[in-house]
Amino acid sequence: MKWWGWGVDGVAFNPDNKPKFPGFVQEKVGIDIYHTTSEPRFEDLDVPASQLPEDLRATLVAALSEEQVVTEDLERVVHAYGKGVRDLVRVRRGELGRVPDAILYPRDEDQVVAIVEAAVAADAVLIPFGGGSNIVGALEAEPGEQRTVLSIDMGLLNKVLEIDENSGLARIQAGALGPDLEEQLGRRGWTLGHFPDSFNHSTLGGWIATRSSGMQSDKYGDIADITRGLRMVTPAGEVVALRPLPATSSGPSVREMILGSEGRLGIITEATVAIHRVPEVREIQAYFFPSYAQGLACMQAIAFSDAAPSVARVSDHRETAFTLATSKESKGVSNLVTKALMTYLKQRRWDLSKLCLSFIGFEGSAQHVRYEKAQVNRIVSEHGGIGVGKGPGVLYDQKKFDTPYIRDFLLDRGAVADVSETATPWSSTQQVYDAVIAAAENAMAEQGVAGYIMAHLSHSYHSGACQYFTFAIADDSDEAIDKYDAVKRAVQQAFVDNNGTVSHHHGVGEEHSPWMEQDISPAGVGIQRSLFGAVDPGRNFNPGKIIHDGQPGISSNSKQPAATDEG
Amino acid sequence: MKWWGWGVDGVAFNPDNKPKFPGFVQEKVGIDIYHTTSEPRFEDLDVPASQLPEDLRATLVAALSEEQVVTEDLERVVHAYGKGVRDLVRVRRGELGRVPDAILYPRDEDQVVAIVEAAVAADAVLIPFGGGSNIVGALEAEPGEQRTVLSIDMGLLNKVLEIDENSGLARIQAGALGPDLEEQLGRRGWTLGHFPDSFNHSTLGGWIATRSSGMQSDKYGDIADITRGLRMVTPAGEVVALRPLPATSSGPSVREMILGSEGRLGIITEATVAIHRVPEVREIQAYFFPSYAQGLACMQAIAFSDAAPSVARVSDHRETAFTLATSKESKGVSNLVTKALMTYLKQRRWDLSKLCLSFIGFEGSAQHVRYEKAQVNRIVSEHGGIGVGKGPGVLYDQKKFDTPYIRDFLLDRGAVADVSETATPWSSTQQVYDAVIAAAENAMAEQGVAGYIMAHLSHSYHSGACQYFTFAIADDSDEAIDKYDAVKRAVQQAFVDNNGTVSHHHGVGEEHSPWMEQDISPAGVGIQRSLFGAVDPGRNFNPGKIIHDGQPGISSNSKQPAATDEG
Repeated sequence: MKWWGWGVDGVAFNPDNKPKFPGFVQEKVGIDIYHTTSEPRFEDLDVPASQLPEDLRATLVAALSEEQVVTEDLERVVHAYGKGVRDLVRVRRGELGRVPDAILYPRDEDQVVAIVEAAVAADAVLIPFGGGSNIVGALEAEPGEQRTVLSIDMGLLNKVLEIDENSGLARIQAGALGPDLEEQLGRRGWTLGHFPDSFNHSTLGGWIATRSSGMQSDKYGDIADITRGLRMVTPAGEVVALRPLPATSSGPSVREMILGSEGRLGIITEATVAIHRVPEVREIQAYFFPSYAQGLACMQAIAFSDAAPSVARVSDHRETAFTLATSKESKGVSNLVTKALMTYLKQRRWDLSKLCLSFIGFEGSAQHVRYEKAQVNRIVSEHGGIGVGKGPGVLYDQKKFDTPYIRDFLLDRGAVADVSETATPWSSTQQVYDAVIAAAENAMAEQGVAGYIMAHLSHSYHSGACQYFTFAIADDSDEAIDKYDAVKRAVQQAFVDNNGTVSHHHGVGEEHSPWMEQDISPAGVGIQRSLFGAVDPGRNFNPGKIIHDGQPGISSNSKQPAATDEG
Repeated sequence: MKWWGWGVDGVAFNPDNKPKFPGFVQEKVGIDIYHTTSEPRFEDLDVPASQLPEDLRATLVAALSEEQVVTEDLERVVHAYGKGVRDLVRVRRGELGRVPDAILYPRDEDQVVAIVEAAVAADAVLIPFGGGSNIVGALEAEPGEQRTVLSIDMGLLNKVLEIDENSGLARIQAGALGPDLEEQLGRRGWTLGHFPDSFNHSTLGGWIATRSSGMQSDKYGDIADITRGLRMVTPAGEVVALRPLPATSSGPSVREMILGSEGRLGIITEATVAIHRVPEVREIQAYFFPSYAQGLACMQAIAFSDAAPSVARVSDHRETAFTLATSKESKGVSNLVTKALMTYLKQRRWDLSKLCLSFIGFEGSAQHVRYEKAQVNRIVSEHGGIGVGKGPGVLYDQKKFDTPYIRDFLLDRGAVADVSETATPWSSTQQVYDAVIAAAENAMAEQGVAGYIMAHLSHSYHSGACQYFTFAIADDSDEAIDKYDAVKRAVQQAFVDNNGTVSHHHGVGEEHSPWMEQDISPAGVGIQRSLFGAVDPGRNFNPGKIIHDGQPGISSNSKQPAATDEG
């Protein structure tokens, strides 16, 4: 990953073949995409020196090797933060926070045990690092941390170790990135089916540590469902070894305690996950709805029906407009079809400014896909929607992992953008949507900035769904991130005030921790606190994440570590 | 429930219309069903006096009422144990263990808080009691417990409080029995779809506390999937209030810590659960397979297919023989059909002594049921099975909750019988089955008793399944329960030695606790221990359950409480 932004060098968002995009951005956020700042230069950073004590270095080098204990500045800066927009802004500004003193690259579980033992003996802080794509502040040390800070990069643990073809299970090392593991599984005809937006730059261990969810979770489940067996090195240097079981009633689920633990209970080294045969047919169909309310009602009806699509997604009219503006120029037949469609919808008295685009995915045998599609088409039709074929779905599939690049593009042009998502019961989907849009727009007005917010529903369950919000403000001043943060806070508060959770699949980190008591109740936080305190009494494992008594993270380095964290 | 056996007075297993049953039992276990012992008499019991301190009684009566604080002997004996066969034998023998000093019947959550505060202040032990159907020793106080023991019976908290029709969610009090809540939901066209064998005599709170699973879990999920929101009173007298969310990434799942906690973390007062519209069509189809191996392979193929039946169950040849022997006398046409079928199977060279009966359930619209059935029929056929229609399925549906009554019937006639179940990956289903049968038969031979063991596969998941074993030994001596226990221990050890969990849905209690380190690893047990110790430092909440360092429970009262329980 770039030290200052998303993804790899040389890949970026390209507006050139999207003729409607400049006008859209100008109109909605008021920025000129042709007015850009220069790329940040690493030489301009003032990187604090590593404070790795010599005896700890010697212990670590003896247990690993010289090359696996890295203290060079670029690596340390890359591991200082995740990739939330707050992180991007800080690093561009040269506000590096408490940069880790060393990055450790274990080759196997024994080396992880050795690292844990050395770190705890030296009272150092250990922060696990997978792909580094976290956007909720889970990867940074507490600002005032006085102890040695070690980042443990799991990147060398990237193998699919074993496939149990009779059970549909694969044992995979925690550091395997999405494309790595899908490639290794795909060679033998299998897929994990877990495709979060961050897929290219996130790891199995990271997904587990944050309770991730992929785009096809309606079929494959969230990572909590997918993860059957687990291995984790505890602060005591012991290995929790949970065998892959389809279900068990052996007390409170230790598996579900490790899921979402964000490094606070130990270092996840491998997991045994449910895998599926690559389906015979995989299809994404596009639909339009005349309003978001009808789209929401339709997704709920599908969830209650006998149909079980792999993806059920609908964008609000704001995001639909954005998607149409970022589409490549339509040409020839496709252009004619689009124009004909719009004419047809106008004739049916659709208000095209309220148009909502939906994608619904189908997987299985050809017969099964036909059967499911027929059911979904009927339900869509009952809710006033209209099918527009596979074309847009193919487009969606191609560019689904590219969205995060837009943040850097916008940052280069003076706009701060990021995402936040929640899940609610179905009865609250419209309510939370309305409240979040109002809260964000209100916060933008209060901050005196132009901005835009848009949303989609992206994961359906029997009793509720996830809605995903993207918002941007136009501000290139030094206060930009504070203003952005005020909007983000308003969004999060609207979530929990309207029956939503603080996060559906990004995790808590430091950024969402202030809402935890409102989300799971003070006594619920008390139980998490009890667990963390008892398993990691020295607060050596990613302290301050999930439970943190401060204010939501902002750009300032002036914050103190939350001394009352463990209460 | 009867103080000495399963279910309500006046209901018992009736062999009179099952002409093959006496011969079957005589042949397999060597007992004469017409030779019966007399029903135990309550007057013969020597019930130790309640040791409820007067000041604690006064506090409890002030917080509740006189009628809600019960110290009479019959109630105390009913609440002393669950209904495992070990419990039935002990209570019939008059071995009552550490009988609770009082039974408390709270009317609402505030009264539960008052009870918890009074109990913790008095350093009493609190044991939650739902339907009392537990079979793993989760309801009894530790034998040498010196402190006051209070059983908190949740029976008055039995209401469906609220139905959210748009979300498919119902808020239900923890003490609601299966029939109570299904009746209240059914009136409005909904079902929970959770039907464990104990359905008539177990409660929502009990299901949650033990991670229960119902017969239709393939469609409706285990109770862990069904439970979305929860309320629990902690040892500190605080209320954990988890809102009903379809999914969340708010740290380690507190919901999944309460699920399976068996009273060790607090008292569950209510849950918000996923409910479903009563389906248009519900059908159980019966099939025969020529061998259990083919039946297992078929169930696995169904789990990997696009089909999603609500039930997928196959019995081994031993259980099939038992089922045929307990069938009511066939008459007229049905008798002719059965005979014709057996002739047909013989012609196809099936070994009828290896015949395996399977039930597969379908739910949904008529069209959906047709579609699913066509797929399943094809897969059954590919695995050498044959469909035999709905008839046996209707029978299965009618008598599915009656099986536990057979234990009392057999006990009256000198045979000790009970059940145990495990879950493994699909690749281990045959292996664990073979190992369990061999281990049980070997243990019976070692104990010098005649016995019988039989099994079925009852819950399918993508990556594995649950198999459920029923076993009986013929012994009416004082050592009967010790011999039974030797068999049970052999079964449990075969589970964990062959990639199985210690329990799929009965829980751990005291009886399964010795296998916990083998099941979830010593470090995994360490995490549970940390959690219990931190949340309940005084060991007031059902101590000794789940984590217990003694030997598996046997009939003796000589055991001491496990002093090192909390390590």
